[in-house]
Amino acid sequence: MSATLGEIAAAITAEVIGDAELLIEGVATLQNAAKGHLTFLANRRYYPHLASTSASAVILSAQDAPHCPSAALVIGDPYLGFVKAVRYLTPGPDFTPGVHPAAVIDPSVRVPEDCYIGPGSILAAGVSLSPQVYIGPGCCIDPHVTIGTATRLLAHVVIAQGVVLGERTIIHPGAVIGADGFGMANEAGAWLKLPSLGAVIVGDDVEVGANTTIDRGTLENTRIGDGVKIDNQVQIGHNVTIGAHTAIAAQVGIAGSARIGKYCMIGGASAISGHIQIADNVIITGMSGVSNSIKTAGVYSAGLVATDNTLWRKNIVRFKQLDKLARKLILLEAAMTGHKVQD
Amino acid sequence: MSATLGEIAAAITAEVIGDAELLIEGVATLQNAAKGHLTFLANRRYYPHLASTSASAVILSAQDAPHCPSAALVIGDPYLGFVKAVRYLTPGPDFTPGVHPAAVIDPSVRVPEDCYIGPGSILAAGVSLSPQVYIGPGCCIDPHVTIGTATRLLAHVVIAQGVVLGERTIIHPGAVIGADGFGMANEAGAWLKLPSLGAVIVGDDVEVGANTTIDRGTLENTRIGDGVKIDNQVQIGHNVTIGAHTAIAAQVGIAGSARIGKYCMIGGASAISGHIQIADNVIITGMSGVSNSIKTAGVYSAGLVATDNTLWRKNIVRFKQLDKLARKLILLEAAMTGHKVQD
Amino acid sequence: MSATLGEIAAAITAEVIGDAELLIEGVATLQNAAKGHLTFLANRRYYPHLASTSASAVILSAQDAPHCPSAALVIGDPYLGFVKAVRYLTPGPDFTPGVHPAAVIDPSVRVPEDCYIGPGSILAAGVSLSPQVYIGPGCCIDPHVTIGTATRLLAHVVIAQGVVLGERTIIHPGAVIGADGFGMANEAGAWLKLPSLGAVIVGDDVEVGANTTIDRGTLENTRIGDGVKIDNQVQIGHNVTIGAHTAIAAQVGIAGSARIGKYCMIGGASAISGHIQIADNVIITGMSGVSNSIKTAGVYSAGLVATDNTLWRKNIVRFKQLDKLARKLILLEAAMTGHKVQD
Repeated sequence: MSATLGEIAAAITAEVIGDAELLIEGVATLQNAAKGHLTFLANRRYYPHLASTSASAVILSAQDAPHCPSAALVIGDPYLGFVKAVRYLTPGPDFTPGVHPAAVIDPSVRVPEDCYIGPGSILAAGVSLSPQVYIGPGCCIDPHVTIGTATRLLAHVVIAQGVVLGERTIIHPGAVIGADGFGMANEAGAWLKLPSLGAVIVGDDVEVGANTTIDRGTLENTRIGDGVKIDNQVQIGHNVTIGAHTAIAAQVGIAGSARIGKYCMIGGASAISGHIQIADNVIITGMSGVSNSIKTAGVYSAGLVATDNTLWRKNIVRFKQLDKLARKLILLEAAMTGHKVQD
Repeated sequence: MSATLGEIAAAITAEVIGDAELLIEGVATLQNAAKGHLTFLANRRYYPHLASTSASAVILSAQDAPHCPSAALVIGDPYLGFVKAVRYLTPGPDFTPGVHPAAVIDPSVRVPEDCYIGPGSILAAGVSLSPQVYIGPGCCIDPHVTIGTATRLLAHVVIAQGVVLGERTIIHPGAVIGADGFGMANEAGAWLKLPSLGAVIVGDDVEVGANTTIDRGTLENTRIGDGVKIDNQVQIGHNVTIGAHTAIAAQVGIAGSARIGKYCMIGGASAISGHIQIADNVIITGMSGVSNSIKTAGVYSAGLVATDNTLWRKNIVRFKQLDKLARKLILLEAAMTGHKVQD
Repeated sequence: MSATLGEIAAAITAEVIGDAELLIEGVATLQNAAKGHLTFLANRRYYPHLASTSASAVILSAQDAPHCPSAALVIGDPYLGFVKAVRYLTPGPDFTPGVHPAAVIDPSVRVPEDCYIGPGSILAAGVSLSPQVYIGPGCCIDPHVTIGTATRLLAHVVIAQGVVLGERTIIHPGAVIGADGFGMANEAGAWLKLPSLGAVIVGDDVEVGANTTIDRGTLENTRIGDGVKIDNQVQIGHNVTIGAHTAIAAQVGIAGSARIGKYCMIGGASAISGHIQIADNVIITGMSGVSNSIKTAGVYSAGLVATDNTLWRKNIVRFKQLDKLARKLILLEAAMTGHKVQD
């Protein structure tokens, strides 16, 4: 990890303020950067640390540049610039191809020469691997799974029967793709399971977080579009479709047959009901319950924010009376203004 | 997957409208069904697709039958009928018995001839297996676990020491049954762990979802009743009991020592406090917090639903003032009506 | 498990009421205890069971002692006393050292003689083990992980590259420590991943629950302080720091770069936003969303509690009108009192 400020500026298309020959040998936060480090300022919260940073250079906006105590790279979106700079400075993931002797591979599987299969990983009959696939330790790949070029499965990933993964997709440890959907009918109190006849189709350049679960479809396939990024412990139900380039933060739940648009952002711990549709370019803030379709782009929210427990206790008592209080208010208003009140 | 409409009608006890000799060769949704397919109409949301379906036959209610453009199977509960039809048309899960050479089985374990143990699975000392048990790849079965007849553990399941699983139960990938409970006492700021002396007892015909966790009891056993269906990423704390045939959707959390009745339905992402009791036949809608016991059957809800962020911001500010506003309203009403106001 | 009441009293520093020579041979709840059992009364909810308990002795407070039908151990904090008694009566976890032949250990790893490595566990190059480490079956330990003395990893744990675990720490099954953080920048709609350059540093005496995920830092390390206890299915984002002795219940989510103080307690299913700070000694009750920093110790809450669905439906409709209703109320008050109203 070493480049001149000028080289980095060229790589990320930024304007250099200061010495373009300055050698950058690491990256760090504003607070912890030392001599030789490149840092960035994107979130206003961290502005107070700009004046005292020990970094040799800061990626920031034109607006903040005059206040920068060091060399600077000026760019419209400093966070994007920083991400590009780190990617430029750090080598991508790499591996030595080969099949570990402790892998268990069905004789029907052809492993391309430039793939890696880790110890303890199990590839069942009919698994199809494209070139440059990396399968880490302890993965279980069920029959007839298809994995696209340069896709990487880290440790302990489970891919169930018939699932298709695109190219350059990354699956983090403990993720389970293709378990049965939670579809069942009730007969006289007892539950009768609907067999899952569909699979999961995952696009290119997707990322699936640790311990996330994506269920297979019941009649059709569950579909994850290209460029979708899914954080840890997300649950995606059967038959769900996620449009391209949508980002889903940790612990979100999306119930069966929901259809999520493209370019959406779903905040952590939100829950989306089954069978509804979310339009393209919708932003849902964290911890929101969404029980009806959202038809137009925009920002949507639900949930309350934490307050002092004593105040909260009083307010939730009042919430239980809210409809009654509202009716009282409307009556009172009518009495004062002389309007006839509708029930 | 192939049967005549008449055969399917007999299997699910429905009335045929149209040609009973019609050959059904697949199942699909209303929108995607083609010639030869059977489909169904149960959710009103999908009614608009009925008129244009290309299916050869539709399972639906008597009320919708007159509007069906194809042959039909008329039945009181179309979804139940469809689930039965799919089960009739698709063979159940099957496997070739045997022990994979890459399984690691303690010499004390007797594996019945009709069981399957997958590669990488580890069975510790004293594990007891009934006939027809299927243990997929990469499972860890700790000492003295008991597994009932025809129970199936899919990939990467962890069953901790002393846990008992009933018959025909299915455990999906990544589930962990029998980890220690989160019981501890505080001594001068530091936490002292309560050893878990109980186990988990899982009944017959239970289903446990992917990456779900069920903790062992501390003094007694955690108990999951017969026919209970648990979706993915559910957390069930120590000492909890779940009554028979209760269904629990994804990402629900049930805290320690709660007692859930029979025939309950708990919506996704709900959270149930510790030490409380939920009666039989209670329905809790999604994303609800339940902090007090529920003593009578019925439908219970909490939580807010997502709205436009600008409106939501205004409303949550008002929520913080709710008790104050309610007091103001009561004073105002009293002033108008001349009543003396109680504090 | 057998000791006299007097021995237990000495071990937990309690006062004996009754026969100190009484032999205790087991522990149980008030309701289920039998002759020879020790039990406890700490939660008022269980007081009605005191009179009818069949236990031979009860650990309880001085206030409850007069109502105890059996021998008693009187102590200020009966739950703490009971935890200490159970720990005194039950042997700690123990194991026979050794390396299972089905473990896969890189030649560069030195395994101390008193460690245990289970079947199917994989230790990559450069893993450093202190004495008395226990690694259960099916764990994946990535390159250059460091594990402290007497730390225990149960089944199927994944520890990613460069993570450091302290001493006497316990990691439960399915936990993933050190997966990549969910940091990325958006470029013309598509997401660009920020490489994770940091690791996770876990302190001494920490407990991490089943299927919990703790992401590695992006620029700095994610840090879990000494004595922190984390329940199942908790998600801890990149760069988060958790202060010593904080307890985090199941399904909590803590977003990236949040800083949690010491001695905090975070109730189950709560969600904490990124980049905020929580002071020491803060208690957050279950299912609370925390989106702003909390600067002073105390109890904080959010969320609603479940009510009858019909009432709830009316109230959430009113919640959407809350700001409008509040404005109406203020106008009405002004009209009555003759004050001029500010918009």
